[in-house]
Amino acid sequence: MTTIGIIGSKGRMGRALQQAIADAGHEYAGGADEGDDVGALAAKADVLVDFSAPVALSANLDAAVSAGIPMVIGTTGLEASHHAAIDTAAQKTAILQTGNTSLGVTLLAHLVEEAAAKLGDDWDIEIVEMHHRMKVDAPSGTALLLGEAAANGRDIDLAAKSERGRDGQTGARERGAIGFASLRGGTVAGDHSVTFAGDEERITLTHNAENRMIFARGAVKAAEWLVGKDAGRYAMPDVLDL
Amino acid sequence: MTTIGIIGSKGRMGRALQQAIADAGHEYAGGADEGDDVGALAAKADVLVDFSAPVALSANLDAAVSAGIPMVIGTTGLEASHHAAIDTAAQKTAILQTGNTSLGVTLLAHLVEEAAAKLGDDWDIEIVEMHHRMKVDAPSGTALLLGEAAANGRDIDLAAKSERGRDGQTGARERGAIGFASLRGGTVAGDHSVTFAGDEERITLTHNAENRMIFARGAVKAAEWLVGKDAGRYAMPDVLDL
Amino acid sequence: MTTIGIIGSKGRMGRALQQAIADAGHEYAGGADEGDDVGALAAKADVLVDFSAPVALSANLDAAVSAGIPMVIGTTGLEASHHAAIDTAAQKTAILQTGNTSLGVTLLAHLVEEAAAKLGDDWDIEIVEMHHRMKVDAPSGTALLLGEAAANGRDIDLAAKSERGRDGQTGARERGAIGFASLRGGTVAGDHSVTFAGDEERITLTHNAENRMIFARGAVKAAEWLVGKDAGRYAMPDVLDL
Amino acid sequence: MTTIGIIGSKGRMGRALQQAIADAGHEYAGGADEGDDVGALAAKADVLVDFSAPVALSANLDAAVSAGIPMVIGTTGLEASHHAAIDTAAQKTAILQTGNTSLGVTLLAHLVEEAAAKLGDDWDIEIVEMHHRMKVDAPSGTALLLGEAAANGRDIDLAAKSERGRDGQTGARERGAIGFASLRGGTVAGDHSVTFAGDEERITLTHNAENRMIFARGAVKAAEWLVGKDAGRYAMPDVLDL
Repeated sequence: MTTIGIIGSKGRMGRALQQAIADAGHEYAGGADEGDDVGALAAKADVLVDFSAPVALSANLDAAVSAGIPMVIGTTGLEASHHAAIDTAAQKTAILQTGNTSLGVTLLAHLVEEAAAKLGDDWDIEIVEMHHRMKVDAPSGTALLLGEAAANGRDIDLAAKSERGRDGQTGARERGAIGFASLRGGTVAGDHSVTFAGDEERITLTHNAENRMIFARGAVKAAEWLVGKDAGRYAMPDVLDL
Repeated sequence: MTTIGIIGSKGRMGRALQQAIADAGHEYAGGADEGDDVGALAAKADVLVDFSAPVALSANLDAAVSAGIPMVIGTTGLEASHHAAIDTAAQKTAILQTGNTSLGVTLLAHLVEEAAAKLGDDWDIEIVEMHHRMKVDAPSGTALLLGEAAANGRDIDLAAKSERGRDGQTGARERGAIGFASLRGGTVAGDHSVTFAGDEERITLTHNAENRMIFARGAVKAAEWLVGKDAGRYAMPDVLDL
Repeated sequence: MTTIGIIGSKGRMGRALQQAIADAGHEYAGGADEGDDVGALAAKADVLVDFSAPVALSANLDAAVSAGIPMVIGTTGLEASHHAAIDTAAQKTAILQTGNTSLGVTLLAHLVEEAAAKLGDDWDIEIVEMHHRMKVDAPSGTALLLGEAAANGRDIDLAAKSERGRDGQTGARERGAIGFASLRGGTVAGDHSVTFAGDEERITLTHNAENRMIFARGAVKAAEWLVGKDAGRYAMPDVLDL
Repeated sequence: MTTIGIIGSKGRMGRALQQAIADAGHEYAGGADEGDDVGALAAKADVLVDFSAPVALSANLDAAVSAGIPMVIGTTGLEASHHAAIDTAAQKTAILQTGNTSLGVTLLAHLVEEAAAKLGDDWDIEIVEMHHRMKVDAPSGTALLLGEAAANGRDIDLAAKSERGRDGQTGARERGAIGFASLRGGTVAGDHSVTFAGDEERITLTHNAENRMIFARGAVKAAEWLVGKDAGRYAMPDVLDL
């Protein structure tokens, strides 16, 4: 059993984290939100999980370092200066930062990279995602993460080889391109698939999220895994030993 | 057993039709290609199947009418004048004209129209298709045919309600819109799916073509069905009694 | 806005119904559970929804008839005597009884019946379902309901033509058979698909449930629809005008 | 360009191999069938591909060893004595033996093994396959190969942990079991999918074969790869450097 403190406990993700902590049989050390003393929370916890805001990151890192405990960072919108601060803190304690805490997506990205590395570019790569009707941008961040994994496997530059938003007279498919398509509708929490289409055969690697609790569960798994690790900067693939 | 003549017998579709005629146990009356006498072919056949060119349509219709036999027209690129000529000929013999001869696609379009009519526009409609890497346009003609079926079911204008090529900051989905996405890769003969995404549930209607022989088989089924029918203009749904 | 009373309000379905009533903007008239006076509830409601137990059905029907209001019955495990009681009550008020309140499943079954009727038995029918790891029986009731729809469309007897649990030396597929396969795993709320596999093409009709709230929402839709209807016995397809 | 000889050139696979050799731009050295001199063929070829019969294997291996050329063996129905003969020959020349020559299936099996190794047994594994209506056994050999890959990844015994042919009162799913389901219909060349179903998320790895040419193409790829390799026994994963 691990005692876990949440920074940013009152948002949707914070509430989901509390549920995930309880479901996994861990202890909830409490939450620190705007104006709260993160140091006091750190003193009571084995590990912190931060889903607050970039502006609070520096103080949160200080609190973790001072308390000598690790921290999982799921806050989005980080810039270069935030990453530098993480690197500095990671010299003194274990820090895991990630833009996607789902274990399933983490594994899928790994499998995609491997498949892309093993199959030649006569296997066309197509990435399709579906999300609920309220989502305002396309492709999803996870689709782009999967595209990066494929591009890494092939050792190409994703931006230079993307085919997005096909419509009209597109011409034949460019060899080596990575295609993206985005579907929107209903209340879909998030489906992603990556297809490798070769001559007369296809491999498709798919992830389906039933709801957003998987992100909270993955963050809790990461927190549990991070306790006792050496100082250093970690990422989700480390949790799965990928 | 039906004796079937092919106008445009030497192209890819013409050869596929000959195979389909043999597979179905029918008799091949022979082919008429550029410069050949269609009247002579009509005299030997129970029914003609025309996959030639718009420019030849008028003479082909004359031959069918003169011989008093029906004709299936799968030629693409027809204009208003061609349709007028078909209507005139259909006063004297049975003519079935269609842009897609697959029985499966024909049924799918019917089911899509019905689902769209029964489900309110709180069910978002998304149409996805995948074709081989050499296809030069998007969405496919069949995807648009399915979109028309959905729009008919909802009694809306497809052109005014289409969302195609989503990419970037799209904003939330427009209520009642019909989305299209196109995948390209490998040697895929043609996959189409229409999803109705409601609150916490989805219905998806899919068609997979293993190869292009299905279009030849469907045309032969249509020819077989058309023999003995009254003069008039028919379409593929009639073959399935839809 | 409709005022809806729930018989059996304290179970999982009862609580989901209360949520669905609120989400749909209707008014909750209250619940009647074991020992409560259903007549008092009926006096306050426009319509009753009964997800209680077969043993209570007769008294519940009496209350609806006395109050002159309609009732939706989702109680399972009904026997011939219960159906007779429903028929009697339906002479005086509108009663809708169903084993599955999902609108999506209701529509899917209708489409399956139609496809089965239009496609010959050279199109093989396969039904696949996936449910969570705790489900103890196979195939699911909904898979069987879809099988019945297919059998009705083909005018055959489902029991005589089912292929279930294929394993080992099965021999070639029997013409006209309807196959069933059941997958179990994770927390899947319920996925069903019906495939019609013809020569070189397939049509697949699929329903995905994200969670069990869809059954509550469908029951509320049915209740709303039932208000004001003539006395008589109704079923879910009536709600969708199928 | 590689010069390839086929042992067993007149069967369906032999003819497909000749097509695949031509498509890949290689040279066809000729075929050896029952009664033919394999040694004469070996003298003209860079590599042999054997899809004949177990009874001929010993002589075929001798011919390859004598000529000092490698051999791909796709013959099925091999017993322990055949494998011993292969091991002996592999001390002198390069021999690749496999029960499935598809590159896509080979990669899929590798990904399945890896996913099974990384995900705990709280992720339920389900394997589904669909084949044409004439197939007489279930599950398919490829489904079992994928099951073995999953079992290897988890370090369990497949036979002891299989759930096949679910039907009736099955009880809840056994933790750690690997489920199999088989669909039959139409002319499907072969679809396989392996689902890992966790709490509220699923990963599904799928392979679709459009036709049986992929097996011939994979065998030709293996033959091309095998030329110039050191003596030894190889398998399909080696071709993809897995």
